[in-house]
Amino acid sequence: MEYSAIAQRKQSQLWERIPPQWRLSPSQIPPGMHSPAESVANVQYDRVNVLDIPRSCGLLSAKELEITENWDVTGLLSQIHGLKLSAKEVVQAFCKRAAIAHQVTRCLTEPLFDSALQRAQELDDHLRRTGSPVGPIHGLPISVKDSFNIRGVDSSVGIAALALHPSEADAPLVSLLQSLGAIIITKTNVPQTMGALDSANHLFGRTLNPLNRQLTVGGSTGGEGALIALRGSMIGFGTDIGGSIRIPAMCNGLYGFKPSQGRVPYGGQTDGQPKAKGRVSIQAVAGPIARSVADIDAVMTHLIPRAQWFGEDCIPGAWPSPISSFGQRKPVTIGVLPTDGLVEPLPPITKVLNEVANALRRTPGVNVVEIPVPAALAKCQALAGRLMGVDGGLTMMDLLESTGEPLIPWLQGRTKRGRPLTLAQLAELQAQRGAIELELRRKLWALDSGNEQKIDAIIFPVAPHPVPELDRYNAVGYTSSFVLLDYPAGVVPVRKFNEGDLERGKEMAKPVLGSWDKANRELWNERTVDRTVYLNSPLSIQVITPKQHDYELYQAMDLIDRAIKTNRPKL
Amino acid sequence: MEYSAIAQRKQSQLWERIPPQWRLSPSQIPPGMHSPAESVANVQYDRVNVLDIPRSCGLLSAKELEITENWDVTGLLSQIHGLKLSAKEVVQAFCKRAAIAHQVTRCLTEPLFDSALQRAQELDDHLRRTGSPVGPIHGLPISVKDSFNIRGVDSSVGIAALALHPSEADAPLVSLLQSLGAIIITKTNVPQTMGALDSANHLFGRTLNPLNRQLTVGGSTGGEGALIALRGSMIGFGTDIGGSIRIPAMCNGLYGFKPSQGRVPYGGQTDGQPKAKGRVSIQAVAGPIARSVADIDAVMTHLIPRAQWFGEDCIPGAWPSPISSFGQRKPVTIGVLPTDGLVEPLPPITKVLNEVANALRRTPGVNVVEIPVPAALAKCQALAGRLMGVDGGLTMMDLLESTGEPLIPWLQGRTKRGRPLTLAQLAELQAQRGAIELELRRKLWALDSGNEQKIDAIIFPVAPHPVPELDRYNAVGYTSSFVLLDYPAGVVPVRKFNEGDLERGKEMAKPVLGSWDKANRELWNERTVDRTVYLNSPLSIQVITPKQHDYELYQAMDLIDRAIKTNRPKL
Repeated sequence: MEYSAIAQRKQSQLWERIPPQWRLSPSQIPPGMHSPAESVANVQYDRVNVLDIPRSCGLLSAKELEITENWDVTGLLSQIHGLKLSAKEVVQAFCKRAAIAHQVTRCLTEPLFDSALQRAQELDDHLRRTGSPVGPIHGLPISVKDSFNIRGVDSSVGIAALALHPSEADAPLVSLLQSLGAIIITKTNVPQTMGALDSANHLFGRTLNPLNRQLTVGGSTGGEGALIALRGSMIGFGTDIGGSIRIPAMCNGLYGFKPSQGRVPYGGQTDGQPKAKGRVSIQAVAGPIARSVADIDAVMTHLIPRAQWFGEDCIPGAWPSPISSFGQRKPVTIGVLPTDGLVEPLPPITKVLNEVANALRRTPGVNVVEIPVPAALAKCQALAGRLMGVDGGLTMMDLLESTGEPLIPWLQGRTKRGRPLTLAQLAELQAQRGAIELELRRKLWALDSGNEQKIDAIIFPVAPHPVPELDRYNAVGYTSSFVLLDYPAGVVPVRKFNEGDLERGKEMAKPVLGSWDKANRELWNERTVDRTVYLNSPLSIQVITPKQHDYELYQAMDLIDRAIKTNRPKL
Repeated sequence: MEYSAIAQRKQSQLWERIPPQWRLSPSQIPPGMHSPAESVANVQYDRVNVLDIPRSCGLLSAKELEITENWDVTGLLSQIHGLKLSAKEVVQAFCKRAAIAHQVTRCLTEPLFDSALQRAQELDDHLRRTGSPVGPIHGLPISVKDSFNIRGVDSSVGIAALALHPSEADAPLVSLLQSLGAIIITKTNVPQTMGALDSANHLFGRTLNPLNRQLTVGGSTGGEGALIALRGSMIGFGTDIGGSIRIPAMCNGLYGFKPSQGRVPYGGQTDGQPKAKGRVSIQAVAGPIARSVADIDAVMTHLIPRAQWFGEDCIPGAWPSPISSFGQRKPVTIGVLPTDGLVEPLPPITKVLNEVANALRRTPGVNVVEIPVPAALAKCQALAGRLMGVDGGLTMMDLLESTGEPLIPWLQGRTKRGRPLTLAQLAELQAQRGAIELELRRKLWALDSGNEQKIDAIIFPVAPHPVPELDRYNAVGYTSSFVLLDYPAGVVPVRKFNEGDLERGKEMAKPVLGSWDKANRELWNERTVDRTVYLNSPLSIQVITPKQHDYELYQAMDLIDRAIKTNRPKL
């Protein structure tokens, strides 16, 4: 079947799963939402912020607004477990809100509203019958990226050739979440190939950023970014190999958490890649996008200890971690890493990083250290890129060509049939990786002296630019490097881009470092961008900790988030 | 240079490093020890047990005998740290004993006696000056497999082409051990290529089993096996990809501990393999061979928490592990896995496994469960073998041919130039591995029901045969499977092979399962072996725990070792 016919079927299927009474009236739908097909190429949107539509559209009752807006994960669970709210009314409110979110951003792929409501009823019955929840997150409405297999549901990941082939088994993370009592209300949109940073594909169209439709929603977990920002789900699970959890978190002003390998089950994904590619090249990981550090904590505390019995790729863990090194050194020492040495961050990025560093300097018990940029850091982006493209992209290109599916704009010029690496070439890349790991472990964490940890956590830009316009995301090395290194890495939103950040008429003085840096400057140079597009967009920072220091990452994100909030008026 | 000329130089170098006053008189040296070159092919040795020679030869003083025979690791350290023994007299006693051990088994490659004595003097000075040891294992004389790089010392691993090229830097494990205060007194012998199970090579000859020179010493950490059995070092560090720690432990009646990946630094090895091969195929790990479970505990407790700051491949850990699952379930549940389903264990192996199971059944608080053999287990050996040979052995064959070095007997017929796998073939193997991991995690640990651990540890044969004669080791799958699966696995000696085990005139009744099983029967069939060669050889069992449950493995080995010792008279 040709890709456009498959797309038609998927779009009808999706639309049919949204009950008529949950549909916005034509006048409530922002312009440009009607044709998913056109949205892939069409980048002409207004700067509308649609965050208020769920509240203003009138479809949600006062109680549904309260359910979807008043609680964090722990609060909502206590309402359900305390019989103040039924799982069914909670799930119904979130399904409805997710449906609305979809109609203003195209964030969903496979709504699972019917099965979610049925499961909620079962949980309510169980709780009433036994007096106990089925698990610690009994009744929590959650969403997952389209790539997670759910039995009987497509995992098309935006590729026509993969659509209309329902999965045969649940992904281990799906099983784990369900065993804990979570209810999956929908799967969410991704970019074609999942190797792009704008969540656009020919099956479901382009997911839009609910904060500003001229800016990218990010990817590849872009549907989750929009959905969580619109409060259409309590927490969203994505995957990250180049930044696919952290980039949408940044683009939507959310918190993202990319764990180390082996912490959260990754198996049971459909990705259009050769089987087991991650095991020989670079391994993607799964993790949450959430609205607060507390919400990340609230789910990770249940996932981490059980993960090893669901994912064959997982290791034992505890949350809180009894061997956390965070706070062992007093004062807590936070490193500031200003750049990757390859792409110079644009002025607002450096400004925000310094603001956070200053907020930390004003925090009692915290020491802030500038980390000299190690030369090896600049090598990470290219190495991660080569490892990701180890198979020459052939499997993916075959899939696309089998239905005549054209590349989305972001991928055009970036993606073509390559040559698979030989085993010797692959091993050489892995040897380079080992050498980089060794150098960076010493230089970033031991400050190049001895074999002792001296830095608890590092703050670093999420990207060298603010949330860019559609199809203009650049310099993925700021995020992919920490998959290459297997460092846990999270995103914390800091503040909105403001008038002062515009620095009108002022250009960057530093000499251009190379082609990546040149491309990045185009997102700032007044001849190549209208900087006012960034106004009110979220500015965020990335936090990293050493390999497998996942609980320490949560502790660092919490500390930094509090420091930002405490110092906000003075920023 | 031709390999035999290189071998001549290495042998002279080795001999010159043994002080004349530490040399045995010709009459004290057992027959067949004079020509390392001949020893590779020559398999005609007597059944002499040489364990007593260090004591009987007269070279060791009463005090040196006391130092080398009376203490375990903790006891010896308390003597040194309490100033009852100096590090120098301890190191001198062990160096001397190691030199004697070498003269009766050819177990050393690079004696480091001079630098060890110098370091011991420095430690003594430090302790006297400051009142504190330099680290928790200050003064402990240890040894490492030839593959661990030590600056200025060859890592020839029995390959002429690699000899006479001193390493430029210390391996991370060497740095870690030295930072803790350990003193490396020697490196020890390995098989040519390290891919064989008899420790024979043309540089240093064949290491002999000190318990019975007609039986193999095992490999690839065979030099350590002989040296630790002869008490020429307190603890020996080896590496294991197919069983190279566990097999010599079994062959020499010792305890061996193969950790999970990331527990003990592995980097800085010379192995004659393509760089980073382990990262794309199957990863070898480093671990100790010791004379007791307590000695393993005594070193691991210091290595595990520090490993992550020495090896870039290491993860955080604690020992004791605060998240150990061992003993959480009451009673402790030990599974008995009788076979890998591919090779039927010979009668004495099954007998010993049952004896240990019975000893455990008599142990209060322990539940013993027979585990049905999962079909996937039989697939592990071939898969591990294919992953080990992923590069077609070309790098190794080039090295051997560059000096005209012939293959040792064990490798003849087993090793030839192959074809490197393509990336697609490699990824397919890794996908098979993932599927096997998933199936075995369920069937071995959750007993195929649900996602909960039900078995704490499993006992399993180390090999399907007793310690075999030279060059007859077979069926490496009993050990390599747990590197494929990344399960921690250890060896515990049980008892000696006795007259009753001979079962004279009785052959195995079960039908032969296949070619591997057929080869194994040749080690028992009275037409193909004189079973009396096994008399008094050690019989051992293997203990395994789930992936990354390393501390739990120590706990299980300790429990099982105590159960064996408690029940020994009744066995």
